[in-house]
Amino acid sequence: MSVPAGLIKALNDGDNFLLATHISPEGDAYGSQLALAMALETMGKKTYNFNRDGVVDFYTFMPGSERIQTALPEDTSGYTLVVMDCNSAKRAAVEGYSFKRALVIDHHITESEFGDVKWIVPSAPATGIMVFELIKALGVKITPDMAVNLYTAIAVDTGTFRYNNTSPEVLRAAAELAEAGAQPGEIAEHVYQSWSSGRFKLLCMTLGTIEIVDGIAMSAATQEMFAKTGTSPADTEEFTNFPRMMKDAHIAAFMKELPDGRWKISLRSKGARDVARVAEHFGGGGHLNAAGCSIAGDFQSVKQKLLAAIKDLV
Amino acid sequence: MSVPAGLIKALNDGDNFLLATHISPEGDAYGSQLALAMALETMGKKTYNFNRDGVVDFYTFMPGSERIQTALPEDTSGYTLVVMDCNSAKRAAVEGYSFKRALVIDHHITESEFGDVKWIVPSAPATGIMVFELIKALGVKITPDMAVNLYTAIAVDTGTFRYNNTSPEVLRAAAELAEAGAQPGEIAEHVYQSWSSGRFKLLCMTLGTIEIVDGIAMSAATQEMFAKTGTSPADTEEFTNFPRMMKDAHIAAFMKELPDGRWKISLRSKGARDVARVAEHFGGGGHLNAAGCSIAGDFQSVKQKLLAAIKDLV
Repeated sequence: MSVPAGLIKALNDGDNFLLATHISPEGDAYGSQLALAMALETMGKKTYNFNRDGVVDFYTFMPGSERIQTALPEDTSGYTLVVMDCNSAKRAAVEGYSFKRALVIDHHITESEFGDVKWIVPSAPATGIMVFELIKALGVKITPDMAVNLYTAIAVDTGTFRYNNTSPEVLRAAAELAEAGAQPGEIAEHVYQSWSSGRFKLLCMTLGTIEIVDGIAMSAATQEMFAKTGTSPADTEEFTNFPRMMKDAHIAAFMKELPDGRWKISLRSKGARDVARVAEHFGGGGHLNAAGCSIAGDFQSVKQKLLAAIKDLV
Repeated sequence: MSVPAGLIKALNDGDNFLLATHISPEGDAYGSQLALAMALETMGKKTYNFNRDGVVDFYTFMPGSERIQTALPEDTSGYTLVVMDCNSAKRAAVEGYSFKRALVIDHHITESEFGDVKWIVPSAPATGIMVFELIKALGVKITPDMAVNLYTAIAVDTGTFRYNNTSPEVLRAAAELAEAGAQPGEIAEHVYQSWSSGRFKLLCMTLGTIEIVDGIAMSAATQEMFAKTGTSPADTEEFTNFPRMMKDAHIAAFMKELPDGRWKISLRSKGARDVARVAEHFGGGGHLNAAGCSIAGDFQSVKQKLLAAIKDLV
């Protein structure tokens, strides 16, 4: 992966950087942002770290995460903006603000014309691996704190090396980062083993609701379940992935009841089965193997509509 | 990790090898055995691959797994035995048979005096990584089939790089194996997403049995559950790991009822909590964060004994 000279020049030339990542951030967003901020500071630059949604609880272990601000400075015009792990001003919640320049570092397919200098590599498994290469290209030594952030970024976006995007390069980068001070076991513990017991109980309950019809695994979390376990719909992140453990579950549909009575649907699939079509049918969207939408109605009717749409469209 | 010259000599000198791994085998056992068998055959040797318990369904994807025999040859005396991923004749179910020589390759702490040539490295995260070094030391090129077996071995014994034993060396070996032809995403799908629906039902049932006492999560699978879901004790691999998702579950103890009424116990812990001590107390063994043993008795008394030992020893 070769880092564009224009990006290196832009980072060397700037003095004040405003680093931003996408809303509803996760490990790759936080890790890329925090590691680059640290590298820029090593180079004598100033950084302002922004994310409208702040830091999710179980990512607070990431070094520097306490510095992420949920508000922008009053005057942004003196900053060089660096948008990471997304490529539009809107996704980063900086729309309508003016900056000295805007740089984009991302591994998602371009969806906007945003940015003066763009480095977008859709084949990169994580933005974190791009930032890893970038920091090395800037001539900055990877510190243990940077290593933790970058390792977390890469681990999260590859399902800790379980997804198809796990290449030899990813594993080699992870080895280098572990050598530089990242503790793989500790990071995995933070990311995967820090559930509240209520969230775990909720998982057990939703697993109990699984029904498999023609290779489609349907499960649900109701408001009653949230109340019983002291949890909220946000606690169901990752739940959709569990039914996929079954060989014969080619598609998983997870329904969660929102406080307003609508159902938020998460869809996952294996192989070439396109669940984005189902989500789009209900006004939502997503990718081939992961998509989402909302449907209003009572549990049984929503479930039947959803099942019919999956059978019809996939 | 340096391979003992005596082991290399013994492998070079022998012609007929009987490779054996522990009963109730898993990915590290199968992968180490199959990869070494392939390497020895490349060197012009003959191999006989034995495991009393055969091949668990979801490991049948491992290249060469169809060659594992559940019976020993009538006359074993002409074979050089290689015991892998365990270090006693009993654990490998070859007790009472005579062999030309016996070689031991293992990463568990020695529990027996068995073996003419022993290579035991308790700090190795997997026997697979030892076999990887061994095959290179033998001057044999790692083929794609060997790579799949060794990658699987290493992946399984590190929880695909989530456990504390995930060192830079492990990640670097994984990178080399991915380069040599192992597909990390495919292997993870085989290991983690190829469960039968019966096995998944069994998991849901065992999750329903979880009780947490002072940070110790106890769960169980009974013969009745196996019968109801059409599964067997072998299907419970990985089950011990689920309670660890909870932040407050520092130790997980999973009990499975064997057909003879004994209980096989799997122990997992986080951080510096040494569960091997508990396993050893009951005549078993293992590592700091992962150990196992067997206890005879009825469910309640075994559970109480186990809980008392954990509280007392950890």
